[in-house]
Amino acid sequence: MVSELGLIQIYTGDGKGKTTAAVGLLVRAAGQGLRCQIIHFMKSEIVSGEDKTLSAIKNVTVMTIGSNLISGKNQNLEEVRTSLKLALLESKKAVSGEYDLVVLDEIIVASSLGLIPESEIFEIAKIKAEATELILTGRGATDSLIEMADLVTEMREIKHPFATGVEARRGIEF
Amino acid sequence: MVSELGLIQIYTGDGKGKTTAAVGLLVRAAGQGLRCQIIHFMKSEIVSGEDKTLSAIKNVTVMTIGSNLISGKNQNLEEVRTSLKLALLESKKAVSGEYDLVVLDEIIVASSLGLIPESEIFEIAKIKAEATELILTGRGATDSLIEMADLVTEMREIKHPFATGVEARRGIEF
Repeated sequence: MVSELGLIQIYTGDGKGKTTAAVGLLVRAAGQGLRCQIIHFMKSEIVSGEDKTLSAIKNVTVMTIGSNLISGKNQNLEEVRTSLKLALLESKKAVSGEYDLVVLDEIIVASSLGLIPESEIFEIAKIKAEATELILTGRGATDSLIEMADLVTEMREIKHPFATGVEARRGIEF
Repeated sequence: MVSELGLIQIYTGDGKGKTTAAVGLLVRAAGQGLRCQIIHFMKSEIVSGEDKTLSAIKNVTVMTIGSNLISGKNQNLEEVRTSLKLALLESKKAVSGEYDLVVLDEIIVASSLGLIPESEIFEIAKIKAEATELILTGRGATDSLIEMADLVTEMREIKHPFATGVEARRGIEF
């Protein structure tokens, strides 16, 4: 489907919009007929609004197999590592030509928390099919990850109301 | 639908992901049952991938009434201003309670190019229904816009391959 070389994109930084930008890219790519997959590495069991919508879109596959550590819930660390291993296996399948655009959501967080070795991300980048566009998200991208990627965007928080007491809201934050 | 106070969010900066983050928010909000509208202020006649997909999603209305100046095409400036006036009128309708989440895509660019007065953005913010979430995108947000908004994120370009000759690609850039 994609005739050009697929790039490796990273969305990182402390600001909003990393996952949503990746979701927006998916929506755009699916609209142009590209086969897309998003794999969540760090989501809780709560089904987010975007996944409800995305699952209904043609050309898009959603997989949530990652840890729910990010939600602050207690979880057996061994279970987390096992589920992340599965997520890595699925990622390798996804990038090897099955899909035109693959989003590995919060994989950088999983790596920066030490839950997966960073070398696995480099392995995924290495086996990626030439035409596949690969999107990695998560705060804390290391210099080596930035060096490896073709296109890196930092979401920088300039102003945030949560500091002043606004809580996470359904439909906006998840 | 939204019980909480709706915020005013801005996505600005020179990096990728401003429009896609807004689209991702729309997709998320629509999935949670919120009524959403996106109005494009600066798009060309080319129908983007995200609009093809978004138009098919329940709860989402897409409007492209803005200028195509951004595409570099020749266009009568009077026509541009007239179409942007219409976009502003539609924006005011949209934020006054008809929708739970409204994205005014590239409205900040329209303002920074002097095609609409910045005061119109403040007017829209002022008449916004309390519960409505308002998302403004575009590079070049002024200090007064940042001051007015509740949540501001800057997309900062850390690394970009177009400098090395990669062209805009269907499904990825539009």
